Amino acid sequence: MTMIGVLGGMGPLATVDFMEKVIGLTRAESDQQHLPMMVANLPQIPDRSRSILGGDEAPLPYLLKGIDLLNRNEVGLIAIPCNSSHHWYAQMSARSAAPVLHIAETCVAAVPAGVSRAAVLATRGALASGFYQRALATRDIEPVVPDDATQHAVDICIRDVKAGRLAEGSAALADVLATLADGGVQAAIMGCTEIPVAARQAGATAFPLIDSTLELARATVAYATARGWNTFR
Amino acid sequence: MTMIGVLGGMGPLATVDFMEKVIGLTRAESDQQHLPMMVANLPQIPDRSRSILGGDEAPLPYLLKGIDLLNRNEVGLIAIPCNSSHHWYAQMSARSAAPVLHIAETCVAAVPAGVSRAAVLATRGALASGFYQRALATRDIEPVVPDDATQHAVDICIRDVKAGRLAEGSAALADVLATLADGGVQAAIMGCTEIPVAARQAGATAFPLIDSTLELARATVAYATARGWNTFR
Repeated sequence: MTMIGVLGGMGPLATVDFMEKVIGLTRAESDQQHLPMMVANLPQIPDRSRSILGGDEAPLPYLLKGIDLLNRNEVGLIAIPCNSSHHWYAQMSARSAAPVLHIAETCVAAVPAGVSRAAVLATRGALASGFYQRALATRDIEPVVPDDATQHAVDICIRDVKAGRLAEGSAALADVLATLADGGVQAAIMGCTEIPVAARQAGATAFPLIDSTLELARATVAYATARGWNTFR
Repeated sequence: MTMIGVLGGMGPLATVDFMEKVIGLTRAESDQQHLPMMVANLPQIPDRSRSILGGDEAPLPYLLKGIDLLNRNEVGLIAIPCNSSHHWYAQMSARSAAPVLHIAETCVAAVPAGVSRAAVLATRGALASGFYQRALATRDIEPVVPDDATQHAVDICIRDVKAGRLAEGSAALADVLATLADGGVQAAIMGCTEIPVAARQAGATAFPLIDSTLELARATVAYATARGWNTFR
């Protein structure tokens, strides 16, 4: 039996959201047709955004421990439902025997054709790291980084979801989406896995919202079902 | 760092529901204040109810492999969000270095004082095994096992949730709860972890519904927070 490895806990509700999306995307009538997963939910990993902004590497040893833990359990693939941690993608990927999906690559691939400008909703750390901007550049899409007032509402949304305050997080996200609609964006990437948790109660938007958790789940399910990991007997 | 071990995948959505309840019950403002968990989501474990009814032990080697897997990862406690698998509780508990919570014990302890008759909503296998009846007997509560027509609706509810058909599962559960209300039960135990997933959309009932997933989550969070597993630095 080969398991999907999930390096999670960043935050815990985002990990649950990711698992729920993997389960929902799997064609299954019974338990046995679902995909096996080994989920290391490790919320003690230090704040990724803060370290990127501060220029320190505090999360890296914890992330590598998580990668080692999953590899010791012989997982066949690793998914990390936390965007900011992908600042250290190269180090994690180099350390891992199992291939590691890149959340931003799965997400940028899902931006609809014809979109030339896309907003990136993410932590300040992920934006400073720049991996979304670089991934969008490979498709010639111009990244739109929110202005400071809008980013402040994004920060509140993320913080509220991490604290379990989903209604407050959704309200903050609604403000962000209204501002983006007024600014005429063509698409927005929810490039922090707390944001889709808040978006469950969001109304319809005039522009497509790309959900990084969902795109990572899609890539994960495609990889694992192509290899028959749910048909083990 | 000590992790909570979760032997899951029976079914996968029930495991996600359990994790979400653990997260919701943990007092936390940031990721780092949440509890670390190692979740073995192993849906390939053969159908527990079928084996109990057929008198075979097909799931047992898989359950013990899951217990071994979690112990190799040095978890400090094991929670199993699947009621029927507790037919093999003694064998799993004997095999495990980490203590294993018993879902029926956590659940029966939550039946309100003064209740002398409680319905047990569970798989036919769990009912045949009789561990809920024995756990209720320790509190002098008479177990009420649904009649065959009502049990048929319970079976449909469980099957629909395992297949991801939540609206259909909720409709089947609504039928069950209406029948129980007509029969004058004082309380009902949702003694299969698929049932609380269907119950999310259920309306108010005249009698208390005891959620086995929630009670297992409460016991898990109490155990882990008492030992400071979310205060590791």
